[in-house]
Amino acid sequence: MVVFWQMDEALKEIGEFGLIDRIKEDTINDAATVVQGIGDDAAILLPTIRHLQLLSTDMLVENVHFDLTTTTPWQLGYKAIAVNISDIAAMGGIPRHIVISLALPKDFGFDFVDNLYQGMKEICREFKVNIVGGDTVSSPHGLIINVAVVGEVEPACLTKRSGARPGDIVAVTGFLGNSGGGLAVLSQADWEEQGFAWSLVTRHLTPRPQVQAGQALARIGVSSMNDISDGLSSEANELAAASKVGIRLYKKAIPLSEDLLRAADWLGKSALDYALYGGEDYQLIFTVSPEKVGRLNKANLGVCFSNIGEVIEGSGVVLVDADGAEEKLEPKGYNHFR
Amino acid sequence: MVVFWQMDEALKEIGEFGLIDRIKEDTINDAATVVQGIGDDAAILLPTIRHLQLLSTDMLVENVHFDLTTTTPWQLGYKAIAVNISDIAAMGGIPRHIVISLALPKDFGFDFVDNLYQGMKEICREFKVNIVGGDTVSSPHGLIINVAVVGEVEPACLTKRSGARPGDIVAVTGFLGNSGGGLAVLSQADWEEQGFAWSLVTRHLTPRPQVQAGQALARIGVSSMNDISDGLSSEANELAAASKVGIRLYKKAIPLSEDLLRAADWLGKSALDYALYGGEDYQLIFTVSPEKVGRLNKANLGVCFSNIGEVIEGSGVVLVDADGAEEKLEPKGYNHFR
Repeated sequence: MVVFWQMDEALKEIGEFGLIDRIKEDTINDAATVVQGIGDDAAILLPTIRHLQLLSTDMLVENVHFDLTTTTPWQLGYKAIAVNISDIAAMGGIPRHIVISLALPKDFGFDFVDNLYQGMKEICREFKVNIVGGDTVSSPHGLIINVAVVGEVEPACLTKRSGARPGDIVAVTGFLGNSGGGLAVLSQADWEEQGFAWSLVTRHLTPRPQVQAGQALARIGVSSMNDISDGLSSEANELAAASKVGIRLYKKAIPLSEDLLRAADWLGKSALDYALYGGEDYQLIFTVSPEKVGRLNKANLGVCFSNIGEVIEGSGVVLVDADGAEEKLEPKGYNHFR
Repeated sequence: MVVFWQMDEALKEIGEFGLIDRIKEDTINDAATVVQGIGDDAAILLPTIRHLQLLSTDMLVENVHFDLTTTTPWQLGYKAIAVNISDIAAMGGIPRHIVISLALPKDFGFDFVDNLYQGMKEICREFKVNIVGGDTVSSPHGLIINVAVVGEVEPACLTKRSGARPGDIVAVTGFLGNSGGGLAVLSQADWEEQGFAWSLVTRHLTPRPQVQAGQALARIGVSSMNDISDGLSSEANELAAASKVGIRLYKKAIPLSEDLLRAADWLGKSALDYALYGGEDYQLIFTVSPEKVGRLNKANLGVCFSNIGEVIEGSGVVLVDADGAEEKLEPKGYNHFR
């Protein structure tokens, strides 16, 4: 157990409006884009001229997406926003505004909600995102968090999943599998004693969306991009399907961290499987034409990147091992109804 | 029990992506404002020039906000969108785009989800709103629906809660209390045999957001506006607090329908209480200066309206009866943590 917090009766006492007053503080991090935030039927926002708008939403459900025995409310708040911002990053966009819906069990205390919002406010500050509204309701069973995010993108920077062309290089930011490895590690009673475990658990509980990299890659003119929320296998397949191409990935090239390799060893599992199927890394997968690949080294991504494969004619994704043997990579990331 | 539906195993078979394909059809009702809807990390939208943007979100939780033994999935889908569109209407805005998050218990069938979306798509067609994205996840306990809506408003039409001035007239659209009465009626076994019950139940299960009235009132230049989601007492108090004024409401002037009066009689309850505290009418309360009140009769609101009171100096809301006796009206609408 990472942390303990006190549940109390305060929430019942203050009611929804008292909670809103408490939440309202420190919610505007870029005042130039907001006419009015929390407090009316809807937030009033000022769109940036000559920009397209991006809109996305994600829902996190207790005991499906998170486990309150292994995450602090602060970490959970941070992550709930991070996964949404990541969707904007994946389009080459700038995250601007979010609205947050919470379904709270009645016995959750003030400290819990306060800490949850502190985590949310921390990441919003970091990425200059405004919290402009929300809905707080009671839940008969477990905590549910929904975040919707509005972003903006210059039309020239807009990057979809569907632009990959045969001959393009496939690359990813950062290391893959750390989050999945972190989740696996958390299920072990003595994980806190393992030095390698902490970086993985941190990546799992507080993933960093690749906003800077997304914008820098968009400016370079990468041909397609996707965030890696459901594991490399699933995301590479989505990219291939959207672009109507095939993708060949080189097993040896998939970036695995030292800590993940050690954790996999300790767990008796395959580190590669965490990268392929673990999900929640929130790194970016992208494709870039050979003419533009040189620009990658000069770009200020704020994160390392690795070439891991190439776009080919056809469909689907194949994984090539060191001997040249190919296996088809099925899109079996985290899928909620299987 | 209004309706029965079949649960089946199909959802488990098709998984999240199969469901998305099914949902995607007939989601764009105003193509001019959408570059790309469902299918990428975020929707890509085209803001209207010289308009402000509105953003709001609402979450509906099974057995808190709805009861699947008294609503059909079609009605529930319709209502989930209606309550969000109503927030845009209350600002004088045009609803444009929504994203929908669903947490679905694993045993909910294809028919259920299909019917839920048919209700959502029906109201979106009616109001030319685009469904541009969402998130579908599994739920260990009960159905949760979250909708976030993006709207637009011309700066000159923007109407907040905070503009009421002493001397203004207070008015509402439509009848109040029908939804609360409908909810009460639904708890009676033999409601279907009562002729007066059907209009109330319909208003409760499928409320119509007052988009046309909201825009027409904004064009007239009403001084403040709010949608009546939590009962007149709560909303009038919100308006008074936001505008830093008092409000005097005349009991006799509050518009109660014939059907509600009959239902209240049948239930042995006060019809007025449903109007004051029942909530979910999604009519509009607004204030207008005496000079502009004449314009109301010429405006095309698409709904009747009633003058129910006046804005005064001070704070809070008082209810005045036929004898001139005043009582303070506390904001005790539906409040989730009380």
